[in-house]
Amino acid sequence: MNINQNYLNLKESYLFSTIAKKVEDYKKQNPDKNVIRLGIGDVTLPLCPAVTEAMEKAVKEMGKKETFRGYGPEQGYGFLASALAAYYQKRNVSLEEHEIFISDGAKSDLGNILDIFSVDNTVLIPDPVYPVYVDTNIMAGRNILYMNATAENGFLPLPDEKMDADIIYLCSPNNPTGAVYRKEQLQKWVEYALEHKAVILFDAAYEAFIQDESLPHSIYEIEGAKKCAIEFGSFSKTAGFTGTRCGYTVVPMELESSGVALNRLWLRRQTTKFNGVPYIVQRGAEAVFTEEGHRQTRQAIAYYLENAKIIGRALNTLGIPYTGGENSPYIWMQCPDGMTSWDYFDYLLEKANVVGTPGAGFGNNGEGFFRLTSFGNREDVLEATRRMEQLGK
Amino acid sequence: MNINQNYLNLKESYLFSTIAKKVEDYKKQNPDKNVIRLGIGDVTLPLCPAVTEAMEKAVKEMGKKETFRGYGPEQGYGFLASALAAYYQKRNVSLEEHEIFISDGAKSDLGNILDIFSVDNTVLIPDPVYPVYVDTNIMAGRNILYMNATAENGFLPLPDEKMDADIIYLCSPNNPTGAVYRKEQLQKWVEYALEHKAVILFDAAYEAFIQDESLPHSIYEIEGAKKCAIEFGSFSKTAGFTGTRCGYTVVPMELESSGVALNRLWLRRQTTKFNGVPYIVQRGAEAVFTEEGHRQTRQAIAYYLENAKIIGRALNTLGIPYTGGENSPYIWMQCPDGMTSWDYFDYLLEKANVVGTPGAGFGNNGEGFFRLTSFGNREDVLEATRRMEQLGK
Repeated sequence: MNINQNYLNLKESYLFSTIAKKVEDYKKQNPDKNVIRLGIGDVTLPLCPAVTEAMEKAVKEMGKKETFRGYGPEQGYGFLASALAAYYQKRNVSLEEHEIFISDGAKSDLGNILDIFSVDNTVLIPDPVYPVYVDTNIMAGRNILYMNATAENGFLPLPDEKMDADIIYLCSPNNPTGAVYRKEQLQKWVEYALEHKAVILFDAAYEAFIQDESLPHSIYEIEGAKKCAIEFGSFSKTAGFTGTRCGYTVVPMELESSGVALNRLWLRRQTTKFNGVPYIVQRGAEAVFTEEGHRQTRQAIAYYLENAKIIGRALNTLGIPYTGGENSPYIWMQCPDGMTSWDYFDYLLEKANVVGTPGAGFGNNGEGFFRLTSFGNREDVLEATRRMEQLGK
Repeated sequence: MNINQNYLNLKESYLFSTIAKKVEDYKKQNPDKNVIRLGIGDVTLPLCPAVTEAMEKAVKEMGKKETFRGYGPEQGYGFLASALAAYYQKRNVSLEEHEIFISDGAKSDLGNILDIFSVDNTVLIPDPVYPVYVDTNIMAGRNILYMNATAENGFLPLPDEKMDADIIYLCSPNNPTGAVYRKEQLQKWVEYALEHKAVILFDAAYEAFIQDESLPHSIYEIEGAKKCAIEFGSFSKTAGFTGTRCGYTVVPMELESSGVALNRLWLRRQTTKFNGVPYIVQRGAEAVFTEEGHRQTRQAIAYYLENAKIIGRALNTLGIPYTGGENSPYIWMQCPDGMTSWDYFDYLLEKANVVGTPGAGFGNNGEGFFRLTSFGNREDVLEATRRMEQLGK
């Protein structure tokens, strides 16, 4: 048997292991120092009561013969799809339940969706970027084009007519830059996709952090998008589900290629290679859309956004340019004094005992930038920013 | 963008939808008849108390900041891998924790594992078979060879030196035939695989139903298997997890292709395209291996096997040959009087109001056979077999 040789083209990512090693070494040499992590990409607040109550109830149902549930629909229970459809409807996006596929998370779907596309397709990916977009396409042996997300374009690249792409990745609010596309910008992407018969893979995992009402949460707020876009959503950051695992993917019926509905292909993929999300978890996710669940999960998001504000204020005081933090949990700051992102990492660790993520880890255009996140404790954020201000620029 | 054209080569499976339609029609025309389903491939007993208690505790942990868990390891928590390693050790199979990958179920892994193999590999699949083996390879465009599982070889095909296969699927106890390989038979497969540098994908989803102590539960009970086999396990039928979703895949470190450890490739696949099983579910799965959990889950299996015995006794009385039912939840019976499997389906539905699954739905060699399952209620099984006996052969 032969292996998939494309796997040998993958670069090992040493980003987070190198960070861990550097922090560990520093702590060993400085056991008395209180190191604060502002680089963490994971939520820290617990699941809200509405969610845990729904899950406890579901666990009890699973323990009784009369209410026990075996195999559910691979694409998810109607009760959750219908709650999601109602959530979209609030922004005047009308979706049928069978256009919404419940999954164990956006990461799985973003990787698995590639199954339904030809390996000859050319992929267009922003740089810097969530590394999964790149790696999953290397695994399949696809040709990858990059588009530059830089300070000049506000980290929001627009279509370049010279580029001929079949599959386009957009992430808004963006990881790692925190930048958010405006409607007229997304409109340009939809027009490009329709013209070039391309498909947009729209990663909306951070949509719940959007506060500015004029910004789009979903690409389907743009006319024509249902004919050219698949959208990925997640409960991970919306409701603290990073360890509970639930997401969803929208494949509108209007989205076709040579007369074949991609919705049917994705249904076939999921019914063949997936067996659905735990009933218990789907009940927890459903509870996010109750009045209580909505209020409680938005409280957690408000907490994180207040952290982001505190970080932003400190950077303003220091005169350091940054994007994100207002409609996103991520803050993408310029490294001061022209430092490389790893130099700034070492500098901040040693001088302020604060840990962030070097931008170079997200792509070539990440060099000279640094990612801070708002998922920490309030006290830690306050202490970290106090130290950064004291250190000066 | 172009779609993966291989998807157009998939046959739509009408098996279960046709069954549902026929049953529905019959019931509409005969509203007073009590139709009993003996074709169901899903568990019906609830989760055991040890599992639900562990999950309730885990839900509570997720609701408190001090005990909340965010992202877990993609390949699963050590506590569950170590419980599984101990389970394997009982049969003298020594595995390292990092050789065991926790997943959301065997179906997902059986499909996704193909990612790490070249599409040029030739696949060898038994007929009849669990349709997922075939469909996932059609999706990738692989060449498929079939081997005959027939009454002549006890539905347990052995290697044919003339066949040159790279990837071999074995399922024991088998779905749909209920047949179980003996150690000396699996030894032949391991020898073939080592000689031909092939990999065996061993589906052990039904191992917990094995009662005969001489039969192997794991392919790793066979010497040399760690160099040529990947094993898939599941909590679905072992502990009633069909709607709770947890399974595992074993990729031994010794398993290599041209010096590349498949374990590393699968780890790379899972860390890139998967984000782990819910913490709550992993705690539930861990509880299956406690003394209480083991006892309670084995009680459910004993209940199903007693159902199988009742069905087997009825078939014996009727003089109908069958396999399975002793070390498997499935009974694979010959259709009486040379009926085709769909003719027998109609006959049994109309004359005894009993529903089973026509063997033809599992492959060409399934013609003339019929699958009954033991997952129903005791009263239903008793009533169904009483009717079948009354009907005669």
